[in-house]
Amino acid sequence: MNQTMSTDLYQINMMYAYYKRGMANTRVVFDMFFRKPPCGNGYALFAGLEQALHFIENIKFTEEDLDYFRSLYPYEEAFLERLANMTFTGNVAAVREGTVVFADEPLVRVEAPVMEAQLIETALLAMINHQTLIATKAARIVRAAGDDPVLEFGLRRAQGTEAAYYGARAAYIGGIAATSNVMAGRDFGIPVKGTHAHSFVQLFEDEKEAFITYNAAFPDETTLLVDTYDVLGVGVPHAIEVGLELKKQGKKLVGIRIDSGDLAYLSKEARKQLDAAGLTDVAIVASSDLDEMLIRDLKTQGARVDVWAVGTNLIVSNGCPALGGVYKLAAVQENGEWTPRLKISENPAKITTPGYKRLVRFYDEQSGQALGDLVTFAEEEIPGDTITLFDPLFPHKRKTIRGYRMEELLVPVIENGRRIGNPVSLEDSRAHACEQLSHFSDEVKRLINPHGYHVDLSQKLWDSKQELLHRSRL
Amino acid sequence: MNQTMSTDLYQINMMYAYYKRGMANTRVVFDMFFRKPPCGNGYALFAGLEQALHFIENIKFTEEDLDYFRSLYPYEEAFLERLANMTFTGNVAAVREGTVVFADEPLVRVEAPVMEAQLIETALLAMINHQTLIATKAARIVRAAGDDPVLEFGLRRAQGTEAAYYGARAAYIGGIAATSNVMAGRDFGIPVKGTHAHSFVQLFEDEKEAFITYNAAFPDETTLLVDTYDVLGVGVPHAIEVGLELKKQGKKLVGIRIDSGDLAYLSKEARKQLDAAGLTDVAIVASSDLDEMLIRDLKTQGARVDVWAVGTNLIVSNGCPALGGVYKLAAVQENGEWTPRLKISENPAKITTPGYKRLVRFYDEQSGQALGDLVTFAEEEIPGDTITLFDPLFPHKRKTIRGYRMEELLVPVIENGRRIGNPVSLEDSRAHACEQLSHFSDEVKRLINPHGYHVDLSQKLWDSKQELLHRSRL
Repeated sequence: MNQTMSTDLYQINMMYAYYKRGMANTRVVFDMFFRKPPCGNGYALFAGLEQALHFIENIKFTEEDLDYFRSLYPYEEAFLERLANMTFTGNVAAVREGTVVFADEPLVRVEAPVMEAQLIETALLAMINHQTLIATKAARIVRAAGDDPVLEFGLRRAQGTEAAYYGARAAYIGGIAATSNVMAGRDFGIPVKGTHAHSFVQLFEDEKEAFITYNAAFPDETTLLVDTYDVLGVGVPHAIEVGLELKKQGKKLVGIRIDSGDLAYLSKEARKQLDAAGLTDVAIVASSDLDEMLIRDLKTQGARVDVWAVGTNLIVSNGCPALGGVYKLAAVQENGEWTPRLKISENPAKITTPGYKRLVRFYDEQSGQALGDLVTFAEEEIPGDTITLFDPLFPHKRKTIRGYRMEELLVPVIENGRRIGNPVSLEDSRAHACEQLSHFSDEVKRLINPHGYHVDLSQKLWDSKQELLHRSRL
Repeated sequence: MNQTMSTDLYQINMMYAYYKRGMANTRVVFDMFFRKPPCGNGYALFAGLEQALHFIENIKFTEEDLDYFRSLYPYEEAFLERLANMTFTGNVAAVREGTVVFADEPLVRVEAPVMEAQLIETALLAMINHQTLIATKAARIVRAAGDDPVLEFGLRRAQGTEAAYYGARAAYIGGIAATSNVMAGRDFGIPVKGTHAHSFVQLFEDEKEAFITYNAAFPDETTLLVDTYDVLGVGVPHAIEVGLELKKQGKKLVGIRIDSGDLAYLSKEARKQLDAAGLTDVAIVASSDLDEMLIRDLKTQGARVDVWAVGTNLIVSNGCPALGGVYKLAAVQENGEWTPRLKISENPAKITTPGYKRLVRFYDEQSGQALGDLVTFAEEEIPGDTITLFDPLFPHKRKTIRGYRMEELLVPVIENGRRIGNPVSLEDSRAHACEQLSHFSDEVKRLINPHGYHVDLSQKLWDSKQELLHRSRL
């Protein structure tokens, strides 16, 4: 569905006010960034760009839309005609999906006539906020699970089917191994997994009969849900009977799934029963309101779980269900020059960083470790060998780095309204996320109270911000 | 977009196992219900049914879908052919959107061949869980706001644009007055509202110039955002200058909006400034991470806010971002008879209520007050004058009611795959929610620790459940 109308009315109203004032073509730069990563995490995994770019490339108001506007307010017909012919003609730079990003970094830079820049704001934010949130939550869960695969099972509890669909996509970037979501599998190529429900067992007189029936349909791919009646009393014993029968036939039971109860205790006891029967290679899948903290806790308790299926808490990012990404005016073109613009706040951390900017990351040439990120004016030269970074809120905190490799994080993706470069495959974005995470220390990636990472401003940018602050009305 | 593929893989796999076993046409009844209302609320407002029915009526696999299944597993071609021709042929009964509903009540009853009943489970749950959640959250926020209108401003922070779209719809059922979401306004007829952003003010040299420019475009509908620089120091004074100028022209400034800072203090001081200037009819709109608790707290502090604009916390239902609605097997048709089926759990509250059921509500004939709900077998007669209700978990807790009006809550909406009756308009569902809420006491509706409401089982249903429990393997 075309998303041009997925916008706030105030965008249309501002566009109209600009139009009436003859400012519709004023060229501006907006930055998209967030002020705090979700869930107390130290970073976010950037995601949702592909959908946002698709939306931007397909801006189109229909006649029906214009009629709707006519019903709302007596907008001038010439304005509505302008809307009818409107496409996005500007430039967009963005970081790659799967990139590890931090608070206050420009992640998307939109340079366009102000009418266009306003029109794309809301949907762009909704798409990137959502997927970045879920990719980050997934990365936390995957981290807690260590080397065990994590499955995304949340569709039924998502905030609608589209949130589940793009949520599965984002979770895949974040490192999940597979999803239960068939549509996400079909369209994004994400591996899909699924077994059976309790109702399947209930439809038979006997649990074992249900197991045999399921196995008859999937002789080589059977995972059995063992908690419909009593996990250790009947569920696992029935699964073992099926597993031993398969073994005789030279086949194998893939796994059992436990979906309720004390997962630490049940998984350990189920493992003992399986092992005692010689079924040491039958995996144990656990589900039941899992999240990263519970998984970590279960692992600490020695739970014998091989695969973690996570539903609700992943797909809605429970505990932190929204990322507060914003889109702020950074510069205005006046007589061909970019004039930085500042948004003031009584909270110093909420003051924006003005100017047409770039974002670079320094890696240690030897270890590959990420050393820090730097935001500068777009035209600034960055020295190739030694640089001193300083904290923008506490400038006395300084760090000099040497022997680095520098990476440009904010790269052009749309020029004059046209996509440049090929869309990145989801598989590549997932691999990129995995590679990106390998450059950051365990301390930066830890789930609680992560270590701060340097995101600094160039001296020139910092000076310019201070000057604007002093000139401001505060 | 067709949502047939918005399902979990295990549904397809169970369907295949049933098909292989010759059970595809086994007729079953599933109940959709939830075990706990969201956010500690005492009830939920049922919503999302229209989307779920639309989905059910449009079940259709495409050739592309079948090819995708072929790529996953060697399903028999005859099974895939069956999918290709599959539509929903069953019966659905459901409560009306906007109905006040409680834990453990059957809200949707699906009677169909098991293949069809499984196929619709996941998307039906996703749609109803989402919209019921947001409608309930909205009702809480609207309740906290008392007689003040609440605006839904959450699109940019929603879990994607579709979650925002249906979220706005659900929030409207829950009682919000308007949304910022233009697409939701266009398609659902929800009133839309919007003013301007901080960036609008920043694009001008002077705040007052921005205000005048906005007012020039919307002379009779101007609400001015006054917190770009300094609310009380310049924002409100500038707005007052515009307001007084409009007054001279016989027009009026509609409102000012405060989007940051101490809303209690700022709104009171802004009110004083406006009143002192004779602009007593200029409304104050507040926004900035509001939710029901904060609104109530601000009102307790005497904040002079006339309109509450709520974004993130409403559209993602922050604090309770998922409703755990489930879909459980209740009965199987055997030799033309419905045999109740029970789902057992070690947690007594999680044991399902078996059988093909109906749901009725009793209202006091005089006061209109809702007295209690009763779940019975579908064919049971309910006496018209006196009935004794009892708590299904604590059967000694009894209550005899007399002089009631009885309402059938679960009513047929799809028969033999076809929608019956006309779709209910959103406006009617919103009015229904408002009317429904009027039948419940303040204690049942309170935001924290609400009073429990009677949701009881008939003696026959309770006896049947006990018998099944005793016969079960536990």
